[in-house]
Parts: sequence; C-alpha cells; structure tokens
Amino acid sequence: MSEIQKNLVDKNTEYSAAFTKGHLALPPAKKYLVLTCMDARIDPAAAYGIDLGDAHVVRNAGANAKDALRSIVISQQLLGTNEIILVKHTGCGMLTFDDDVATGLVEKNLGAEAKEALGAFGGDFKTFPQLEDAVRDDVKLLKETPLINDEVPITGWVYEVETGKVRQVV
Amino acid sequence: MSEIQKNLVDKNTEYSAAFTKGHLALPPAKKYLVLTCMDARIDPAAAYGIDLGDAHVVRNAGANAKDALRSIVISQQLLGTNEIILVKHTGCGMLTFDDDVATGLVEKNLGAEAKEALGAFGGDFKTFPQLEDAVRDDVKLLKETPLINDEVPITGWVYEVETGKVRQVV
Repeated sequence: MSEIQKNLVDKNTEYSAAFTKGHLALPPAKKYLVLTCMDARIDPAAAYGIDLGDAHVVRNAGANAKDALRSIVISQQLLGTNEIILVKHTGCGMLTFDDDVATGLVEKNLGAEAKEALGAFGGDFKTFPQLEDAVRDDVKLLKETPLINDEVPITGWVYEVETGKVRQVV
Repeated sequence: MSEIQKNLVDKNTEYSAAFTKGHLALPPAKKYLVLTCMDARIDPAAAYGIDLGDAHVVRNAGANAKDALRSIVISQQLLGTNEIILVKHTGCGMLTFDDDVATGLVEKNLGAEAKEALGAFGGDFKTFPQLEDAVRDDVKLLKETPLINDEVPITGWVYEVETGKVRQVV
C-alpha cells in the first residue's frame, strides 16, 4: 500500500469514527450545484461555505462548463438542483499552457499512441488565456445551452488562491 | 442576490478572514489526484484526508473515469501528479436511472431542442447498474488508456455515505 493510500485509510478511519451524517438524503438539500477547478489549493466546502448534503460539487481542470454538462443535466433533471455557482480561480494552471504544449508533452512522455488517444476528448484541453473572460464565456455557454432551464440562476465568480477570497464576475 | 449566493459571500468572508495558505504552490504537494462523485454527501478533503494543496480533486456525476480523462492528463503531464485514487460511493444516483429515463426527462422538461443538444456528450449519461463492478471497470479503463503512464498506481475504492467509511475494491 502506497503512502497516499495509507493516508486515505488512516485519515478516513478518524473521519468515520466521528461521523454522524449517515442520514442525509441523496438530493442536495439546498438544491444547487457548484462547478469549480480541481486545483489542489481549493477546498470548496470550507472556502465556499457548503455544508455536507447541501450541494453537488463538480470539479475539473479549469472549472470547464462544457466538460461539466453531463453532470449538470443529471444534477438538475434527476436530482432537482436549480441554481449554478461557477468558480474559476487566480493562478489557474489553464492560464499557463495551450493545446500545442500539452499535446507535445503527451507525445514526448507517452508516445504516438497516446497522442492519438487524445481524440477521447477531441484533443481539446480547454485552456484559457484570460481568467475573467473565461468565467464570462462559460456562464454564457451555460445560459445559452438548451440543456439548462432558463429560470436557473447562473453566476460566475473568481476565487483568489492568494487571499482565500471570492469575488463575483458575472 | 439569491440566498445561495449570499451564503457563498458570507461564509467566504469568514473563511478568508482566517486564511493563512496563500503561499501554496500550483502543483499538488503530494502529487496525486482523487476522482470522486459530485454527490452532496461527500466532503473529499475531510473524508479522504486531503490537506489543502496536496492533491487534485476531480468530481463529476458517478466519478466517471472517461469524463475525467482531460483533467487527469493535465494533472499528470502539466502538473506532475503520479498516483490516482478513484472513489465511487454507496447510494449513488447513477445506480437509480438509465439513459432512456434521463433522455425522457430532458425531453419532457426542456423540449426537443434539449434532447438534440444531449449530443454534446453523446447522449451518454454514464450510469451504472452495480457499484463495485463500476469501480473495477473504471480502474481498468484508466490502467489501459495510453494517456496514463503504466507506472502510475491506480486504486479503486467505495465510500459509504451511511457510515463515512472507505473500503478498497481494487
């Protein structure tokens, strides 16, 4: 067992020993979904004030809206959520490279077969050159898709990894 | 401002006032990635023992591996992670419906245009009928894809929302 796996087991043993929330229902109690980045410096529950059981939390590289559409549709149509909070963040890795750089690294490190396998997600890493614009673009995408009811409030925010603060963009 | 948005601002004001982790680096300190479900009853940081800055956390409906491939490649090739912990969970919504049910709901609630827009993710909701099999299938997918180095340890776990406990499947 690796150190990482051992850490999971040890910390979870402590967590479950004090666990008192086994009664929570499947649908999120506060009926909302948070979409944010996978970045290691973000703890959505703590930083965004999400109590256990209250909200779906979707995370991927860059808090990308298109990547999250399947999860969002399931959240809303099957589990009754009706508000979306989108949070990207300062210092995001997605601001630091582009498809050519990423594709080149994949080919160099993993070979030609891996480069071809990027087709699994269209070879599109969904990077972005400017943070606030990316928030606005993704909120626009969510507001325009027919997959989300027009009544659903959708707001876009930035989380500052340097200060722990959120601020609304749109 | 909605109650949900107000909660975000209020709780984040408290969080940021006590924030002391603005110095953390972009690459995850412990070089691993956790893939888990968006389910509201899961707090990965607390339940899986992830300290701020230590790991990428990817979340989607069902902790689906294929959906997470873009994020995983970025995590490993751009940000240096080299271990994957995949955690699905008991009581998952993905065990309770199938593509026909979901597609029917989308058409009924959002109309024919929305049904067509499901093509954005191939109309595939990635549900699964059995939990442990789904863990094994997704670990297999990650072990077999050329997009992940063969040396990367990949383990599959189940989190019990009733008890707060994790157990290893594969």
